[in-house]
Amino acid sequence: MTTQQHSTRTVASQLRSARARPVAPSGPRRGLGVGELRLDGGFWGALQETNARATLQHCLDWMEQLGWLGNFDRVAEGVTGGERPGWQFSDSEVYKLLEALAWEYGRTGDPAVDALLGKVVDRVAAAQDEDGYLNTCFGHAGQAGRYTDLSTGHELYVTGHLLQAAVARVRTIGRAGGEDTLVDVARRAADHVCREFGAEGRGADGQPGICGHPEIELGLAELGRALDEPRYTEQARLFVERRGHGSLAPIALLSPAYFQDDVPVRDADVWRGHAVRALYLAAGSVDVAVDTEDDDLRAAVERQWTRSVERRTYLTGGMGSRHQDEGFGDDWELPPDRAYCETCAGVASVMVSWRLLLATGEVRYADLIERTLYNVVATSPRADGRAFFYANPLQQREPGADVRPDAVNPRAEGGVRAPWFDVSCCPTNVARTLSSWQAYAAFVEEVAGGGVVVSLAQYAAGDLRISVDDRDPGQGGGELALRVTTEYPHDGRIRVEVTAVPDRPVTLRLRVPHWADGATLTGPDGSATAVGPGWADAGTTLAHVAARGPAALTRRTENGESGPQATLALGDVVTLDLPVAPRLTWPDPRVDAVRGTVAVERGPLVLALESMDLPDGVLLDQVRLDPAVAPRAQGDGAVVRAAVVPLPGGGAGTPPFGSGGPGGAPEPTSDTGMPAALDLTLVPYHRWAERGPSTMRVFVPTARPEETR
Amino acid sequence: MTTQQHSTRTVASQLRSARARPVAPSGPRRGLGVGELRLDGGFWGALQETNARATLQHCLDWMEQLGWLGNFDRVAEGVTGGERPGWQFSDSEVYKLLEALAWEYGRTGDPAVDALLGKVVDRVAAAQDEDGYLNTCFGHAGQAGRYTDLSTGHELYVTGHLLQAAVARVRTIGRAGGEDTLVDVARRAADHVCREFGAEGRGADGQPGICGHPEIELGLAELGRALDEPRYTEQARLFVERRGHGSLAPIALLSPAYFQDDVPVRDADVWRGHAVRALYLAAGSVDVAVDTEDDDLRAAVERQWTRSVERRTYLTGGMGSRHQDEGFGDDWELPPDRAYCETCAGVASVMVSWRLLLATGEVRYADLIERTLYNVVATSPRADGRAFFYANPLQQREPGADVRPDAVNPRAEGGVRAPWFDVSCCPTNVARTLSSWQAYAAFVEEVAGGGVVVSLAQYAAGDLRISVDDRDPGQGGGELALRVTTEYPHDGRIRVEVTAVPDRPVTLRLRVPHWADGATLTGPDGSATAVGPGWADAGTTLAHVAARGPAALTRRTENGESGPQATLALGDVVTLDLPVAPRLTWPDPRVDAVRGTVAVERGPLVLALESMDLPDGVLLDQVRLDPAVAPRAQGDGAVVRAAVVPLPGGGAGTPPFGSGGPGGAPEPTSDTGMPAALDLTLVPYHRWAERGPSTMRVFVPTARPEETR
Repeated sequence: MTTQQHSTRTVASQLRSARARPVAPSGPRRGLGVGELRLDGGFWGALQETNARATLQHCLDWMEQLGWLGNFDRVAEGVTGGERPGWQFSDSEVYKLLEALAWEYGRTGDPAVDALLGKVVDRVAAAQDEDGYLNTCFGHAGQAGRYTDLSTGHELYVTGHLLQAAVARVRTIGRAGGEDTLVDVARRAADHVCREFGAEGRGADGQPGICGHPEIELGLAELGRALDEPRYTEQARLFVERRGHGSLAPIALLSPAYFQDDVPVRDADVWRGHAVRALYLAAGSVDVAVDTEDDDLRAAVERQWTRSVERRTYLTGGMGSRHQDEGFGDDWELPPDRAYCETCAGVASVMVSWRLLLATGEVRYADLIERTLYNVVATSPRADGRAFFYANPLQQREPGADVRPDAVNPRAEGGVRAPWFDVSCCPTNVARTLSSWQAYAAFVEEVAGGGVVVSLAQYAAGDLRISVDDRDPGQGGGELALRVTTEYPHDGRIRVEVTAVPDRPVTLRLRVPHWADGATLTGPDGSATAVGPGWADAGTTLAHVAARGPAALTRRTENGESGPQATLALGDVVTLDLPVAPRLTWPDPRVDAVRGTVAVERGPLVLALESMDLPDGVLLDQVRLDPAVAPRAQGDGAVVRAAVVPLPGGGAGTPPFGSGGPGGAPEPTSDTGMPAALDLTLVPYHRWAERGPSTMRVFVPTARPEETR
Repeated sequence: MTTQQHSTRTVASQLRSARARPVAPSGPRRGLGVGELRLDGGFWGALQETNARATLQHCLDWMEQLGWLGNFDRVAEGVTGGERPGWQFSDSEVYKLLEALAWEYGRTGDPAVDALLGKVVDRVAAAQDEDGYLNTCFGHAGQAGRYTDLSTGHELYVTGHLLQAAVARVRTIGRAGGEDTLVDVARRAADHVCREFGAEGRGADGQPGICGHPEIELGLAELGRALDEPRYTEQARLFVERRGHGSLAPIALLSPAYFQDDVPVRDADVWRGHAVRALYLAAGSVDVAVDTEDDDLRAAVERQWTRSVERRTYLTGGMGSRHQDEGFGDDWELPPDRAYCETCAGVASVMVSWRLLLATGEVRYADLIERTLYNVVATSPRADGRAFFYANPLQQREPGADVRPDAVNPRAEGGVRAPWFDVSCCPTNVARTLSSWQAYAAFVEEVAGGGVVVSLAQYAAGDLRISVDDRDPGQGGGELALRVTTEYPHDGRIRVEVTAVPDRPVTLRLRVPHWADGATLTGPDGSATAVGPGWADAGTTLAHVAARGPAALTRRTENGESGPQATLALGDVVTLDLPVAPRLTWPDPRVDAVRGTVAVERGPLVLALESMDLPDGVLLDQVRLDPAVAPRAQGDGAVVRAAVVPLPGGGAGTPPFGSGGPGGAPEPTSDTGMPAALDLTLVPYHRWAERGPSTMRVFVPTARPEETR
């Protein structure tokens, strides 16, 4: 229904544009363009490479095989009667893949990726109705009517993902020289939504005028930014404001909190209900709040973030304590075995925190992003990029089954990564996140007085070429270039060399994570300074200092005083040393489900104890960790001292509770023939279950009762 | 479609028949007829009275108001188009109420109850199709066709409850003098099922031929026994054997284990999937196994009982660890806060254990029945019998909301008893269990050599008149009469007086629960004997001993030896003293969710700590129980020594885990202005939440770290 208009622009400077980023709010801070950082292998570089090489095609192949792509063809051909493959929201997986392809092309300029994207876009475009409506499940012959099931139909949700894909496209190829097919399709779809759901449309007078699954809000807001269409932002605002008034038809057995229709966003204190929905809504609400300067709305989301993170978030950063509704639980309800921690909720949490980081500059948001990226997002894909976790529990009681590579799997079964799911939102969500990872690595902030601050938020080896040009960003010139050398998170040393300085002074800051007790920053002169958690000031480039050497300057510090300013010249090196020795992490006593246990972390990595790392004949249930013996590093994991305890016998014929004495467990002994004390290896949680089916624990009971209160 | 045929038989001897019991397997053991025990108030007498006075009418009123009864009228009138009130299985609630009314009439002979039953039966009967099919949701104009959705349609499930109601009817009014409408309707429905699903019908050749929700199996088996129709038993056998082969169409997002279609009953080792389904299936399987002398099938259910009780059952006897599928969890997965412990699963567990008790005589089944009756079944109804718990969690984190008395409530919301639910299976299940409570109080066993043993399985004040006539049970004569005087469970003394002796020798046994460490039995001569858990022999009546006094006899003991036999003569009294002082109960160390906690029990009662019993300003999260101080009895509850600990501050901006030290909780102090040690009152769990919304815990963290391994 629309002819192919997209073109493959391969001008490197355009692709590397500072504009090529998923979130571009008004305000003083911007994230990196995906082309502003070239990763040099390492943790994220390897994941990104696997994503590019394997995952994108893997997703495309599955969606082709299952007919989810064919759904577009059938609409275009007008043959929509009969059974339709996939869930009502399967279009959104195609759109998330398009977004991933767009970032991948934006980052690499690989014409093959652009061509692949173009082929899919053409099939999508052909399915768009004349008036801009685009959905393969509703509104055509033999299908339910448009917007007849706002509670569960997911139509606006699906459209939101289309808009996000178009944002990636327009931000990576630019808008000069005419429109692109994907951008054009999205614009028409967004215009349709605005006509249909505008102030005078559906949703007026308290009638249902929102989607059961939030997502359209952030899609509209970002497309509005990308295309300079305030109408879209206004429509996003309407959607945010309309939610929380109980207008959506209830879903059987679920409460309105399931889709956050219980309380308006600006009145809520905590996230609740379906986690992905709550988080997409929060992300869209920040977008609206920032662009409309609605401080009340922004403060509401910050308040929700604070309570939800401090009381409803797992050690991994995972969110969602319940399988029941894929939802948040009550405060302190964080069972490790039934943790849902959907991969998509991890992605969505990063989206929220990133928006709040850009809105506030507060380091806690970057800290949570790191925790979530390493322990949820990176946990999902198998090493080969062709299988995924949907749920990410912190304890596996029974070994997961083997997965057949050709099977569509139930989504929430723990213990195995599966190639595809019946509801398969996670693979494409991982793909789009990995393909745009660079965007979250740093942000650039214009400060009062004409200064600019570059803050490194995530660490990875590579070359940054960051535009700090205050005239016309991304047009070359005015670049701060940095070469980051590190083996983080395996090693805690991050070496940053200044490889190009811009025309204007730029202050460089490095994030010291909240867990990094004892970090040091070593300046160009070799002097080491202890730095506490937060943003560590690494110095300011001086445009007129061409050669290395200290310069006496004054500057305004945060508390308004003046002081000497460290300088960074071309060739200068600053080194941040973060302590990544394994450490014990104790739960808050209100987290009942892990009382009497301790976890082990190593830098940003949560570690896990897997059954295959136990001696033969020892069960995970028998292990007690001795917290008096400090864990020591081994590879990316750790070695801990542990005891093996015998387990009570069975045969009582009663529930597993008795009056025989505390815990029913005898003291650790070697009666089982096992050593009473032995060393056990913990591995990074993000790689668990890769050596075959296993049982697993992140939180290990402690051997020392006096430690377990 | 069937004229009214039922009649009201009020002959007391018939109503008190030994036949008037829900389960009557072949084999040597039978339970009490509901008329063989007249309760004299007490715990169960009061509940039964409330049930009779309030609950039965309450259920009827709700079903009338919601149109669930009207559904039968609409079918009878042929006006089935349009929206039908209630879920597809709402007919079953009507049938469970009919069963409750039948037992109530059988027990009391109250003609008003019989008349009420008759009115409902007439409306049901009028909706039966000519060929015996009876369902208000399928098979009529404007409805889906019969048996078009075996996975979720519940048609056979609904029929099973109809058959159970008819069993209650035929067993209480007898069959002499013609048929009864309810019995006739059930017979025609059962015949229809046999025609439709027989060996050559649906289900042949591996096609789906079972119901997604088991229940028909036990309905058919028991009606077969009641009406001497082996065809029905054979049909039940077919249903049991067909299950477990994956023939049922999958339900989205649920595995075949949800409805036990994953593994055949005789091959399974543990209960899994939806708890009520698993337990109804197990009950029906025992029925089939016993009547077909299929020891392999019986052993399979015993094996499943053992593992499921020892690893997947709560302290309360509650079953079902997951909200997700209302199902069993993995071994040791017993979270207190997210415990589902559906009331109906408690009822179903009693049904299974009772069948296994009759099949084996093993005391452990009676023990679990007691635990479940007191802590699940009795927990559900509010004191006034007009509101109910559907789920029975062992921890409430946030106070439940107030319930509006006129509202249909979501079923699984914790913390409040609600008058009715959208899925309202529990109120009628409680009603039919309470109205037939007598059936489970004792059983009568014919033993080798012509002897008979009467075993008291549950204790309640009242008069038992138990037929031990080996010629024609229930026809008068040959009665053992006992008067039980007790305030159990408030007090542990159970006094049993022999008030009539039969013509043949009868051995009386009293159950000593597994928790009763230190029980004593005092004989007619005043001599007290320590008795351990199990069946305590209280002596044998001697028909020819009319006056009190010892008699020298010999008898065969269990190990084949001969020895002197204690005698029981008319007027003799034996007294069982069970220790019901509050006791600490520790979890098996594999139950991760309650590590570092202890529960308090008092006799058969599980106790709970409710927030309203805390000093002002103290939160439940702050309480640490001191297990070194023995709890003491107070009312039906207990008083424990506890400490109040301050809680960690917030504001970290991270998930609730930190490296600051074990647990993050300081030592118990009085820094909060609270006493460091104080006495707290625990109440019986079955009465929690009756004083308004509260937070609650059964398992309380311990103050003494050395106790919490």
